[in-house]
Amino acid sequence: MSENNQQVIGIDFGGTSIKLAVVEGEDLKSEIIRIPTQKHRGPDSLIDAIVATISEVRAGFPGVSAIGVGVPGAVDFAKGITYNLTNVEGWTSVPLKDIMTEKTGLPSVIENDANCMAFAEWKYGAGQGFTNVICLTLGTGVGGGLILNGEMFRGSQYAAGEIGQMSVDCHGVPGPYGNFGALERYIGNRQISELAEKSFLAANQLSPDDTSPENLALLAGSGDAVALQVWDGVATYLGSCLMSCIFLLNPDAIVIGGGVAHAGDVLFDPLTEKLRSSLTTECFDKLQIKYAKFGNTAGIIGSSALAAELAGER
Amino acid sequence: MSENNQQVIGIDFGGTSIKLAVVEGEDLKSEIIRIPTQKHRGPDSLIDAIVATISEVRAGFPGVSAIGVGVPGAVDFAKGITYNLTNVEGWTSVPLKDIMTEKTGLPSVIENDANCMAFAEWKYGAGQGFTNVICLTLGTGVGGGLILNGEMFRGSQYAAGEIGQMSVDCHGVPGPYGNFGALERYIGNRQISELAEKSFLAANQLSPDDTSPENLALLAGSGDAVALQVWDGVATYLGSCLMSCIFLLNPDAIVIGGGVAHAGDVLFDPLTEKLRSSLTTECFDKLQIKYAKFGNTAGIIGSSALAAELAGER
Repeated sequence: MSENNQQVIGIDFGGTSIKLAVVEGEDLKSEIIRIPTQKHRGPDSLIDAIVATISEVRAGFPGVSAIGVGVPGAVDFAKGITYNLTNVEGWTSVPLKDIMTEKTGLPSVIENDANCMAFAEWKYGAGQGFTNVICLTLGTGVGGGLILNGEMFRGSQYAAGEIGQMSVDCHGVPGPYGNFGALERYIGNRQISELAEKSFLAANQLSPDDTSPENLALLAGSGDAVALQVWDGVATYLGSCLMSCIFLLNPDAIVIGGGVAHAGDVLFDPLTEKLRSSLTTECFDKLQIKYAKFGNTAGIIGSSALAAELAGER
Repeated sequence: MSENNQQVIGIDFGGTSIKLAVVEGEDLKSEIIRIPTQKHRGPDSLIDAIVATISEVRAGFPGVSAIGVGVPGAVDFAKGITYNLTNVEGWTSVPLKDIMTEKTGLPSVIENDANCMAFAEWKYGAGQGFTNVICLTLGTGVGGGLILNGEMFRGSQYAAGEIGQMSVDCHGVPGPYGNFGALERYIGNRQISELAEKSFLAANQLSPDDTSPENLALLAGSGDAVALQVWDGVATYLGSCLMSCIFLLNPDAIVIGGGVAHAGDVLFDPLTEKLRSSLTTECFDKLQIKYAKFGNTAGIIGSSALAAELAGER
């Protein structure tokens, strides 16, 4: 049976809610069911809630053959163990893969959520058909995942793709690991708002009440010079980091998703220009810079696509 | 016949001289023969000189089964065409692989010189036994090559590994492609000397007559505070760039060669410390930071190792 015809369960494990659906290929076959993450204290209670939900879902979809879980943090992909999860306490060294398999009887796969997004985009989305793809999600933080030589690239400890921790300034603001100039400290949601406030102040203009990336994108779209300048600043940081990634990996596509990417052309236009003016012709001319296809469902579709591969191998 | 027992010719094509030897595994079986690059005007004359030398060499080594050439610039690895070479004029779009094969009757392979160094170190040197290796050479410029998932990684247009062009400061000094903050504009040979002159001036000390990296390493080794500070500065730039590479690729080894790397501990100690203090524990703890094994012979050994693979496949 081809992996595309497998019905599997994709789970997007977030700090606020856990989203779960039955997926076939890139199509959601069930509604998305939500479990509030913080209602449960610690892994045991949360896992029980997930397993109970899976049982209910399987009653309606008896053909479900595997489970994929995308988690917000580092995992040992081979062993299926979570190292620790962002914004969720108590998840250090949980052998989630074995627990899920034992409690459901189904093969399971556990992967970092940014890797799930990258896999979804490569398999069914904006990265489809490319051999070397750098995917990133721009939101509160900056996450990333790599497809290299037509395969998910995970690195030696399954920790590759941490684009948000790369430096854009060796003397800059420290990131969470003492990593000076960490990209996400410059273009995370909050940092974009701070940049806007500084920019409006410097221009002797009143800062808008709402300096969210969404509103800044609207302002820039309507021609506001300061808002456009803010996005140009974001593009400078992001462009510098992507330029470094491209010199290192020479990919054929860059796929950008996440809330901040909704800014659209006001971000993508200066970004493309900065990449054009800082790369070799060989690297730039054949490079595609694309919006992600999947939004909030990327985690479910990516984790289920990994699960379908697993089921297809059996 | 195993590729290790193949006798092949390795050629290190440099801007000053072309070095050529018969190699078996990592062992040079002949003397290194040098052809002065600039004595020949354009590719035709130079290729004729190389082919004539190969003929002479083969008289003594009739078993030679393939030829590998490492060139100082970008190549289309699959087609064996040079894009253009640094410091050697007239080498745009030369189908060197086909020419060599036609003129010698031997299968040939053409590769970028930094990739040859990386392959040599991974196959027989400091990178042996590792799965994901970042190799770099520190000299007039900074070159790099990647081994990912136990294979040479070349990227979509065979242009991957350009570590020297990655940015350490998005608002910094422009590199050759308009790439602001290009690493090699901070830690190339000449830039280290400039940094030294500035540092001695700032410390109100007379700058040494010789501010070459070699002499600065000697000074630092004897405890000179300013020289130590210069190497700490070099380590800051290099460490920032490597940190970014490591967050992106999560390698198990970094191999550093080239003239500047001869500085040894005065560079490696602060570099290691900077990486320790800016990486996740998972990424740093299992990471090996190593001196390259091969010096000036890396190009010959790497190009011949690639040629031996080619011969072994036949």
